[in-house]
Amino acid sequence: MEKRIHGGDWAGYQREYGAPPLDFSASVSPLGVPESVRSAICAAAAEADRYPDPSCRALCAAIGAHEGVAPERVLCGAGASDLLFRAVLAARPRQALLAEPCFGEYAASLASVGCAIRRFPLPGSFLLSEEYLSEINHNIDIAILCNPNNPTGLTVEPELLRRIARRCGETGTRLVLDECFVDFLDEPERHTLKGLLDECRPLLILRAFTKLYGMAGLRLGYALCGDAAYLDAMRRCAPPWAVSSVAQAAGLAALRDRDYVNQVRALVRSERRRLAAGLTALGLRVVPGEANFLLFQSSTPLDGALRARGLLLRRCGDFAGLDEDWYRAAVRTPEDDDRLLAALRELLG
Amino acid sequence: MEKRIHGGDWAGYQREYGAPPLDFSASVSPLGVPESVRSAICAAAAEADRYPDPSCRALCAAIGAHEGVAPERVLCGAGASDLLFRAVLAARPRQALLAEPCFGEYAASLASVGCAIRRFPLPGSFLLSEEYLSEINHNIDIAILCNPNNPTGLTVEPELLRRIARRCGETGTRLVLDECFVDFLDEPERHTLKGLLDECRPLLILRAFTKLYGMAGLRLGYALCGDAAYLDAMRRCAPPWAVSSVAQAAGLAALRDRDYVNQVRALVRSERRRLAAGLTALGLRVVPGEANFLLFQSSTPLDGALRARGLLLRRCGDFAGLDEDWYRAAVRTPEDDDRLLAALRELLG
Repeated sequence: MEKRIHGGDWAGYQREYGAPPLDFSASVSPLGVPESVRSAICAAAAEADRYPDPSCRALCAAIGAHEGVAPERVLCGAGASDLLFRAVLAARPRQALLAEPCFGEYAASLASVGCAIRRFPLPGSFLLSEEYLSEINHNIDIAILCNPNNPTGLTVEPELLRRIARRCGETGTRLVLDECFVDFLDEPERHTLKGLLDECRPLLILRAFTKLYGMAGLRLGYALCGDAAYLDAMRRCAPPWAVSSVAQAAGLAALRDRDYVNQVRALVRSERRRLAAGLTALGLRVVPGEANFLLFQSSTPLDGALRARGLLLRRCGDFAGLDEDWYRAAVRTPEDDDRLLAALRELLG
Repeated sequence: MEKRIHGGDWAGYQREYGAPPLDFSASVSPLGVPESVRSAICAAAAEADRYPDPSCRALCAAIGAHEGVAPERVLCGAGASDLLFRAVLAARPRQALLAEPCFGEYAASLASVGCAIRRFPLPGSFLLSEEYLSEINHNIDIAILCNPNNPTGLTVEPELLRRIARRCGETGTRLVLDECFVDFLDEPERHTLKGLLDECRPLLILRAFTKLYGMAGLRLGYALCGDAAYLDAMRRCAPPWAVSSVAQAAGLAALRDRDYVNQVRALVRSERRRLAAGLTALGLRVVPGEANFLLFQSSTPLDGALRARGLLLRRCGDFAGLDEDWYRAAVRTPEDDDRLLAALRELLG
C-alpha cells in the first residue's frame, strides 16, 4: 500500500519522543482554538446525544451570509478533504488533471474511484503558466487546483485562473478549486473565484475552518458551487450526518469571532515575512509563498536533528516534483519561529 | 432527487414548532450524553487545533481490548454510516443483496457507486428465513444485513446467521453485518458474529457509539474485519482524518464508562417490555423487537397529532415493505414512555 504522508502527526511523534512536538508540519493557526470556539464545543457537548442537523441549516445560512453566497450553494462536510472525496465520487471521472506538486489527497481521492491522472508538472518557479490551459479538453473530466497552492504557497495569476475556470466551462470539466489557504493572502478577494459561481457552473470551491480558525481536530469545511445537481450528488455520496453537531456549533462560533481572524491574519502576515527573511539569511532557497507556511530547500538534512530538538517540519519528498531536500514550515508565533530559526542556525551555521 | 428520510430531525421540528420535541424517532440512549463523555469533549476542545490522529491508535487499542479483537482488525469512522459508505466504495460491487425492510442508507450507499440491488422481501413476520441462503451466489458482490434489524428490532436466528456468513465465504460475497443495535439485546454475545472474523474473511461488522452511549451528534463508529486488505482499501476511500479528535477522546471515555452502559441496558430492557405491553394494550400490532426501539402498526394516523403534542415518532412508510401505517418508537425513560402511551391513549381510546 502506498503510504499517505501528511504533517501534523503529533500522535506519532509523541509515541516516539514521549512529549508533543512544536509542530511546524501542520499549517494551522498558531493561536490555538479560539476561546469562543472552545466554549461552543463545551456547550454543544451537553446535547451531543442528538443527531446533527443533516442539512446544517444554521451553519449554511451563516456561511452564506459570511461569503455573500446563497445558502443553497453551500455544502458542509467533515473538513474540505471529506468534500474533496465526495466531489470526486460524485463526478465519476475517468481522467483528471493535476498540477504538481500539490496536496497528496487529490491523487488519493482520484485513486478511490480508479480515475486516471494526467500530471502537469509545475516549472522550477512552481508558478502555473498559460500552458496549463491547453491541457484542459473534453477528455479531462475533472481538474483540481489549489490557490494558493500547497506546498508552495504560491497563487495563480488571477486573470489566468479566471481563464482556466471559463475553459473548464467550455469543455465540461469539473474544476475543484481548493481555496483552503486563501484567507491567509494579503488580498483574498483579489484571488477567490467565488464571484464566478454563477457564470461557471462546473466550478466547485473548497474551504476549511481547519487552518484559519485553528480547528483541525474538529473536521469542518464547506464547498461553494453554482450547480445544485452536483451538490445534491455530493450529498448522496455520504451519510446525511457527515458533519458532527459539535463541529456545526464550533463553526457558528468561529464565524462570529472576527477578532481572532484579524489577529491570526495580521500575525501570519508579519511572521511570514520575518520567517522567510530568517530562512533566506541562513542560505536556504525559500519559495516566496503567500500563505501561512513556507516551502524551502536545504542540502543539509534537517528533519532528524530538528525532531530530536522537539521541532517537527513537513518533509516534502513525497510530493511529485520535490526531492527529499525540500521542507515545509508553518508560520507560527514570533517565539516559535525564533526557536525554529535558532535550531536551524545551530545545524547550518 | 429521492428524499432520504431519517429519525432524529429535531432541527426541522424545532423550526416548525419553535421548541425541541420529545424525540422517539431517533433510537439513541434516553439517558443523554454520559457525564464522562461530556467532560472528555470539553477537555479535548482545548486541543482541537491539532489534527486528529489519523490512525486512531489509542482508540483502536481500546476498542480492540473491549471487543477481544486485535487492534489491526479495527477501523474507526465518523459513525457506522461513514464506514458503510466506505465499505461499499472499497468493494466496488456490481450487485448487492438487501433484506427489506432495512436501514435506508444501505441502498443510498449502493446508489453512490451505481450498484444494482437485488431485494429480498422479508415475510409478514419480518423474520429472515433460510430462503435467504439460496439468494447468495457468485453474482452477489456484497450482502448487507442488520442484526437486530432496523426498523423491526428482530434478530436473525444465530445458527442461520453463521450459515449465511459461511455461504458468503464460499461465494466471495462481502458480508456487511450491521451490529449497531446488538448491545441492546439481552444476550449480545449469543448474536454477534465477531467470533467469526478469522474464519470468514469477507465478514465486516459495523458498530456505533451513537446509540448505546448517547453520542449521535459526535459521529463515531467502528468496523471489525479479518481481511486487512479490505480495511486498507476502506481507509483509502476517505481522507486520513475521518474521525475528529473530539470523537476519539469521547470514544475513549465512553468505553471506560461501564456504569452508564449497564444503566442504559437495564433501562431499555425493562422499558421495552413495558412499552410493548402498553402499545399492545391499545390494540396496536407490535413487532416483538429486541433492540431499543419498537415497530408497530396503527390504522389511525398518529404522526401529525403526536407532533402537535410535542412527540416525534419515526413514520416508516419510506421503508420498502412497510406502509404509512407503520411507526417506530425508541424505548426511552419511564416518564417519557408514559407520555407517549398517554398521548396514544387519547388518540386511540
